[in-house]
Amino acid sequence: MDTADKLAEIFKEFPGIGERQARRFVYFLMARNPAYVEGLAKLLSELKKETRRCKECFRFFADNPRRSPAAKSVEICELCSDPNADPELLMVVEKDSDLESIRKSGTYGGKYFVLGGLVPIVEKDTPKFVRIKELKERMSRKWEALPPTGGRQGLPRGNSLKEVILAFSLSPQGDHTDFYIRNELKESAEKFGIKISSLGRGLSTGTELEYSDNDTIKNALKNRQ
Amino acid sequence: MDTADKLAEIFKEFPGIGERQARRFVYFLMARNPAYVEGLAKLLSELKKETRRCKECFRFFADNPRRSPAAKSVEICELCSDPNADPELLMVVEKDSDLESIRKSGTYGGKYFVLGGLVPIVEKDTPKFVRIKELKERMSRKWEALPPTGGRQGLPRGNSLKEVILAFSLSPQGDHTDFYIRNELKESAEKFGIKISSLGRGLSTGTELEYSDNDTIKNALKNRQ
Amino acid sequence: MDTADKLAEIFKEFPGIGERQARRFVYFLMARNPAYVEGLAKLLSELKKETRRCKECFRFFADNPRRSPAAKSVEICELCSDPNADPELLMVVEKDSDLESIRKSGTYGGKYFVLGGLVPIVEKDTPKFVRIKELKERMSRKWEALPPTGGRQGLPRGNSLKEVILAFSLSPQGDHTDFYIRNELKESAEKFGIKISSLGRGLSTGTELEYSDNDTIKNALKNRQ
Amino acid sequence: MDTADKLAEIFKEFPGIGERQARRFVYFLMARNPAYVEGLAKLLSELKKETRRCKECFRFFADNPRRSPAAKSVEICELCSDPNADPELLMVVEKDSDLESIRKSGTYGGKYFVLGGLVPIVEKDTPKFVRIKELKERMSRKWEALPPTGGRQGLPRGNSLKEVILAFSLSPQGDHTDFYIRNELKESAEKFGIKISSLGRGLSTGTELEYSDNDTIKNALKNRQ
Repeated sequence: MDTADKLAEIFKEFPGIGERQARRFVYFLMARNPAYVEGLAKLLSELKKETRRCKECFRFFADNPRRSPAAKSVEICELCSDPNADPELLMVVEKDSDLESIRKSGTYGGKYFVLGGLVPIVEKDTPKFVRIKELKERMSRKWEALPPTGGRQGLPRGNSLKEVILAFSLSPQGDHTDFYIRNELKESAEKFGIKISSLGRGLSTGTELEYSDNDTIKNALKNRQ
Repeated sequence: MDTADKLAEIFKEFPGIGERQARRFVYFLMARNPAYVEGLAKLLSELKKETRRCKECFRFFADNPRRSPAAKSVEICELCSDPNADPELLMVVEKDSDLESIRKSGTYGGKYFVLGGLVPIVEKDTPKFVRIKELKERMSRKWEALPPTGGRQGLPRGNSLKEVILAFSLSPQGDHTDFYIRNELKESAEKFGIKISSLGRGLSTGTELEYSDNDTIKNALKNRQ
Repeated sequence: MDTADKLAEIFKEFPGIGERQARRFVYFLMARNPAYVEGLAKLLSELKKETRRCKECFRFFADNPRRSPAAKSVEICELCSDPNADPELLMVVEKDSDLESIRKSGTYGGKYFVLGGLVPIVEKDTPKFVRIKELKERMSRKWEALPPTGGRQGLPRGNSLKEVILAFSLSPQGDHTDFYIRNELKESAEKFGIKISSLGRGLSTGTELEYSDNDTIKNALKNRQ
Repeated sequence: MDTADKLAEIFKEFPGIGERQARRFVYFLMARNPAYVEGLAKLLSELKKETRRCKECFRFFADNPRRSPAAKSVEICELCSDPNADPELLMVVEKDSDLESIRKSGTYGGKYFVLGGLVPIVEKDTPKFVRIKELKERMSRKWEALPPTGGRQGLPRGNSLKEVILAFSLSPQGDHTDFYIRNELKESAEKFGIKISSLGRGLSTGTELEYSDNDTIKNALKNRQ
């Protein structure tokens, strides 16, 4: 297998990419000038060097080399250390791309937590990539335990959490995860006086009544206002 | 143009049917046995003879020939004369097929009103097929004005309306209609103590957070519970 | 079940129509004026009264009531009795809509034969709706056997068939039917000096080389010119 | 803009990739282990170092570092130097991915020539990326002019070209290019006794007669056999 074949094999693993498109990517790169491809290769190396998983929200983020040693020492992403993010709200999402979608919508001003996956309906044991233990710790822990940083600028100083918002896609597995997590968090929520909420349901953009399913109509009716 | 061509022309006017499928319908009918096609022709004649527009909700309905002369005299559909339908709720929908979709969902137990269309955003005058005048009358009129019927079984006896639910598809024109009607009904609503509500918004079945638009995320957040 | 429900049931049997669209057809008809629906009902009755299956090509055709008694007596469609159709060419198609598609293309000037279906690959017995026996008879029979008609204008006077063109869709079952029929017709073809041909293969409109399957490339190469 | 954003920008330029999928690629890479991403970066650097444009057929190819200095000196790809490729056939394709598709089909055993693009219908001047001049040279030149190589194993020794096969997609621009090139090559073709052919046309895999366009039916009829 030559380099082109090997590259096509790798591109085939990219999300949503089949054999044909993988091969087209290779031709595309072959036809671009060398500087372009070198630039891409360099960015990829950098990406991996820079990529950190945030110890607060568990999202991947690019650790900008210009960050201060203090900031580096805590490995907390720019969203979690944003002084303008409301520390009373914590939105729990399934994965990084959900977080990104909500962040880009500009409609939410609180903190995030990436669960890492949905809870399967049939399996008995929750997979270890679903961070329920970490979520519970996040709800209960004292922020003071964080390592001291330079000016602590933007870093949380106390656990002022008031509401955990469960934000999962509206699918059977999303519903199951919502139900499961509510149950798991129940005790902590009562103990710490934290409210558990879920994203509202009803008509979404483009919904046509004529073609709506019963659940959507039921939710839209129940949540009318 | 022979009969087959004329039929294809008519089928082309059916909702969602193009030239090719219209022609396939004709072949399909040619190949069926005569009794089938005669049955269809007979049902069509009957449909039109039976079809009435309800004087209450303005939907089309099939006037069963077995209905009593009393029922016939008021031309009110089986939904409007259903004694189990909650007279305190009135759902305003754009068209018959929306009503049918909600009725089939089995999630709503009140009365209906078919508006006849959405209010265009750009035009100055609301088209006359949009029944705003009739809707206002429906909110204010005295039910006692109805012509006397046999046992009056199931027919409304007084205007006990408490809530008007605006149920339009989530599109710019649907939004505009919602806004427009709320404004039009404001005075009557206050006068008669009737609440105006709209279907709830948020995630609908199948919504994936990753691919959600900003409005859906905003509504889902606002209506979280 | 009332008339509207019964109609929806019938529309559901139409090719390509599901429950929702069947219901929409009914609403559409309810909202049209009575004359429209009556017209449709009348055309349907006429269609069936007029529909004949041609004894020559086996297609369905509308027997115009203005046809002469002589023409009526032979039950032959206007394509088979067209004096301008080349009697040396006979195109065998699977079904009426294929014939219609080719007729409309205006690229063929010969006669037709509707086989009635494709030959299944797995079943041992060819279904009786596949008219192989009739096709063999068509190749061998003497036209003089036809009943005498008025001026016999446009009716065939002798079997001058020179070529049978097999025109099936390019699918495994179409291929199988092509192969099967060639074998079945072999003897007659040799006896009567009739050529058996199949539609050409290669690139069709819109074919992009990059996305072509191996068979299409192979055929396009083999048939290059 | 951080590394992740820059990468997303680059992925957006990949063929068929929009903003969302570009972003998903970045998340996908962030979540993979560092070795995977480093491997990808390394392959990209290698790809560009290895990529050559063949001086014979103008396709891009990976110059395997194990190639002999002699082979390197002529910069000819493995297809053009394949001793088993029939030197009498030359297939002219629009682009590398078309060549790849035909090569993979395993149905063609001759040489290739990548034109570099189609000839636009409306513009007066043929764009310079369309290698018509090079194609003419290819038809007329003496192979002996090639620089001497090691054993010359598999390298052409004389121009034994007998047929140029024009293999363009079946679109208006593909047709125009076919017509244009035939005209351009006419003189050389006559002079050197080279036949010009085009890929055959007709039904392609999956073609249904009922839904075929007139051109496809016409070609299928014309090329019946």
